[in-house]
Amino acid sequence: MSLQSWERQAQKGKDILNHSIPKQWLLPADKLPMSTQKNVVDFPRQSGLLSELELLITEMSATELVANMGQGKLTAQEVVVAFLKRSVLGHQLLNFATEFLADEAIARAKELDEYYERTGKLIGPLHGVPISVKEHIGFKNKTCNTGYVSWIDNVTPEDAHLLQLLAKAGAVFHVRTNQPQSLMHLCCSNNITGITLNPYNRTLTPGGSSGGEGASMGFKCAPLGIGTDIGGSIRCPAAFCGAYGFRPTTMRMPMAGIQVAALGQETIHGVVGPLASSSLEDCELFSKAVLSQEPWNDERTLVPVPWKTVTPTRDMTIAIMWDDGCVRPHPPITRALRLARDKLVAAGIKVVDWEPYKHDEGWDIIVSFPSPPSSSLFTDPNPTKSTLYYPDAGALQRAMLNDSGEPARPLTDWALSYARSTPLTHPEAWKYQHKRDVFIDGYHAVMKRRGVDFIISPPYPSVAAVMGESQYWNYTAIWNLVDFPSAVFPSGLTVDSELDVLTEEDGKYVPRSEVDEREWRKYKGPERFEGAPIGLQISGARFRDEEMLAAAKMVEEVVRDGRKVA
Amino acid sequence: MSLQSWERQAQKGKDILNHSIPKQWLLPADKLPMSTQKNVVDFPRQSGLLSELELLITEMSATELVANMGQGKLTAQEVVVAFLKRSVLGHQLLNFATEFLADEAIARAKELDEYYERTGKLIGPLHGVPISVKEHIGFKNKTCNTGYVSWIDNVTPEDAHLLQLLAKAGAVFHVRTNQPQSLMHLCCSNNITGITLNPYNRTLTPGGSSGGEGASMGFKCAPLGIGTDIGGSIRCPAAFCGAYGFRPTTMRMPMAGIQVAALGQETIHGVVGPLASSSLEDCELFSKAVLSQEPWNDERTLVPVPWKTVTPTRDMTIAIMWDDGCVRPHPPITRALRLARDKLVAAGIKVVDWEPYKHDEGWDIIVSFPSPPSSSLFTDPNPTKSTLYYPDAGALQRAMLNDSGEPARPLTDWALSYARSTPLTHPEAWKYQHKRDVFIDGYHAVMKRRGVDFIISPPYPSVAAVMGESQYWNYTAIWNLVDFPSAVFPSGLTVDSELDVLTEEDGKYVPRSEVDEREWRKYKGPERFEGAPIGLQISGARFRDEEMLAAAKMVEEVVRDGRKVA
Repeated sequence: MSLQSWERQAQKGKDILNHSIPKQWLLPADKLPMSTQKNVVDFPRQSGLLSELELLITEMSATELVANMGQGKLTAQEVVVAFLKRSVLGHQLLNFATEFLADEAIARAKELDEYYERTGKLIGPLHGVPISVKEHIGFKNKTCNTGYVSWIDNVTPEDAHLLQLLAKAGAVFHVRTNQPQSLMHLCCSNNITGITLNPYNRTLTPGGSSGGEGASMGFKCAPLGIGTDIGGSIRCPAAFCGAYGFRPTTMRMPMAGIQVAALGQETIHGVVGPLASSSLEDCELFSKAVLSQEPWNDERTLVPVPWKTVTPTRDMTIAIMWDDGCVRPHPPITRALRLARDKLVAAGIKVVDWEPYKHDEGWDIIVSFPSPPSSSLFTDPNPTKSTLYYPDAGALQRAMLNDSGEPARPLTDWALSYARSTPLTHPEAWKYQHKRDVFIDGYHAVMKRRGVDFIISPPYPSVAAVMGESQYWNYTAIWNLVDFPSAVFPSGLTVDSELDVLTEEDGKYVPRSEVDEREWRKYKGPERFEGAPIGLQISGARFRDEEMLAAAKMVEEVVRDGRKVA
Repeated sequence: MSLQSWERQAQKGKDILNHSIPKQWLLPADKLPMSTQKNVVDFPRQSGLLSELELLITEMSATELVANMGQGKLTAQEVVVAFLKRSVLGHQLLNFATEFLADEAIARAKELDEYYERTGKLIGPLHGVPISVKEHIGFKNKTCNTGYVSWIDNVTPEDAHLLQLLAKAGAVFHVRTNQPQSLMHLCCSNNITGITLNPYNRTLTPGGSSGGEGASMGFKCAPLGIGTDIGGSIRCPAAFCGAYGFRPTTMRMPMAGIQVAALGQETIHGVVGPLASSSLEDCELFSKAVLSQEPWNDERTLVPVPWKTVTPTRDMTIAIMWDDGCVRPHPPITRALRLARDKLVAAGIKVVDWEPYKHDEGWDIIVSFPSPPSSSLFTDPNPTKSTLYYPDAGALQRAMLNDSGEPARPLTDWALSYARSTPLTHPEAWKYQHKRDVFIDGYHAVMKRRGVDFIISPPYPSVAAVMGESQYWNYTAIWNLVDFPSAVFPSGLTVDSELDVLTEEDGKYVPRSEVDEREWRKYKGPERFEGAPIGLQISGARFRDEEMLAAAKMVEEVVRDGRKVA
């Protein structure tokens, strides 16, 4: 049976991946865990592929790695080889890569080692740090398909601006990672390199759209990764995979050279930011390394707001959002929120409850505005359909599918089901953009009025979703709408077969809407989510990225072990 | 003959104006200059309405006024009364006001005087400074029509954010000023309060869209005014009226509460900024007074870039743009550019010629993109029609006209003649937005490569245009596209009946296009522009507002009298 034309195109993407895999580190199939084994995070130790030193290296944070290389205790080459080996293993188990960059990475690591030997100095704050990179961030003279078969031959002429800056700071890029078709799933599957799995439970999704990055971080294939986020795409994979993620305020991190079909779309700005395998400190390291190079001098659509060093303080008020007023979080999430509340209170930090500020209205502004403004101009035939993500009624995404003939993945259909049947007129789009701006001011004003500095919330109604089930975006997307810098960190808890059973009270819960019911019914019990880590999200006012990260670090320390509270 | 419905509505706007005029200061018609007298800038001295002290007060800058009030030499009340009297006179001669705020202004001035008496201190950096305000900047419980009859009953519930901050800094608002229908003329006429005239030559336009502000500054009805600018609307009136104007980088000055039909439109951002009657220093005073209040803490779509104090330096490279490569400037403009070049060189400042960076392409991105991107999605039926100003094909502006039935003014028709017959699709608009961003980076890159810090250019191809003839926007709009902070200042020259005659060489000029020919043919000779001041524009990199203003001050001092060059 002959391949269809789109399949032949997709094969090119598979070929790029397959040719790039360093074959010397592939384990034979019979040495791998059974495909029915859900949790594979401990496999690197069992595999025999990595030495003790390599295991140690790959469990270090970027900050620790740089410190060790600065003391001459580790070379960049042994660091990148360790992470490459772990990445190959991770890919065999999780299908998270789209292209390995082994030769370039090792060559670059050697250069860095030579530099260090010659000068006795590190080349920059990310000297020798292996970083995995979401596929749609362009590399010079490499293809960049953004999850679409129609772009399989799209070769980018230059490294993305961000990659240039990270490289200058000493970073080594060793693997490119998977993303979903359309980039608009909180899951990770496409028609090119397929479906990426969650290392804590391979029946669950690693999240998306930076799903390959989630898997990379969860399996510790790199200490740092680069993701992008327009509705949760950094934070959801970080949370689902027991890792760290930081969605910065827009217009700070360099975006030039990141490929998306809707380049120039501004109704909701996408952002790029770091994920980290083992610490929020690494997210800071990454951000500072980039912004200290003043990228706004070349990418002039960025704002010149330098990265500043902020000392964490206990003098803050943290609010806990138990529920967004729309969709009830699953029991494990609520348990982690309780732990956070209790530990923070015990540590003497002021904690209040957060009554969500019109999250339903926020979601309406993003995807479905039920009450169109009244005027002869606004005779909207789709008053409850998508506005800010798809003002074009999804035409561009559909054209991207049609151009190759590839079928839509189920979650692409899901995302496009929000799209209108006709585009918004421009004046309608302007109204929604203005509504968005008013909502941004409103959210900040209510925080100020309540004296709240930061909000802890679920990153998602559930822990890592069952593959294909990630449908409710608004625990993360709300912060995209109001452009709050937000970070995700593991609570230290995982789903517990005893603590997380549905209680009698849970059984009596009457959902507030169809959506609430749909999400609530997905829980059923802890078994479906066995082994999944429970992440938490923290968010703060626009442009207060540094303060938010400092607070996040303190909160995480308190929540995870109670140490280090000054 | 009965009035049409739109005329009855328009009458409400006229009534608001007429009721608000402080009648005690109106001169009888026979005391006014003949309507054929073109230049009226000296009339305040001849009128007998203002005392010597009042003449002195109204010729002071805001900085000088504040200094005098701070030393107890002037009261806020006598200051505002002086400017009110001059404003009434100016209105009789130029028709620049839409509403006087005499009672409120005097009451506020009294409060300020009481505060000063009680505390011995000024209330803020703008203590007692009268400021005229373009009509579409909303005042609490006042109407705000934005030049459209259909909005004649539009009452704004709050003072615009900027007005709140200026008031806190001590400003006194005494008069609201005229603007053109649609706000999209570089001229100033509407169907409500009519046509505003240029104080230097009443057959010329004061420019637009902040035309009332241009007249206010040129006639010294206030030391400071507030304008808005999406294509030249601060700078063109400042230049046409021998005044100063500053278009800041976007997202710095508070925009909340400024009324426009297309609120939420972001293809090209409008900005608000100061005009000043007598110094660039006042533009700085205004900006610092606003930004020192950190407006981004309340208006969260602003960026937190504090206003910084910059010491002017001679160590800079200034480029002179003699021609934008599209439309040849008229002889007086070229003469002023030569003066600037010669004086700057004589002062030891490095001056180079500026070869414009693709201004034709810039203009194409704004209004008419001749080569649409090729894709099945982009089957554009109007490939050469307006994009970023009117992605909606002008539908919103036309609806604003249709809602009242008022006829379009000729320059509204002109602006809309750029509009497409069908709207851009959203994906097309995104492409153009991306083109815009690439163009922004490109312009900055070429400046950096050439080592140029600031560019001096014509603000317009001509000095103040003949009424109704302002058609070519791109000497100012190009800086809106690339978001360069830009200022306008008077060269100190006015049109000269001998120096500015067309030479034999001028007669041989072969225009490069129809547009070039149209603009060039408008000159004819100095007689049409008798008395018009010649302004210059200076622009610098995005977000370098403070550096640009510091450079502008130094350049102006050098160009106007050669003094003060350190």
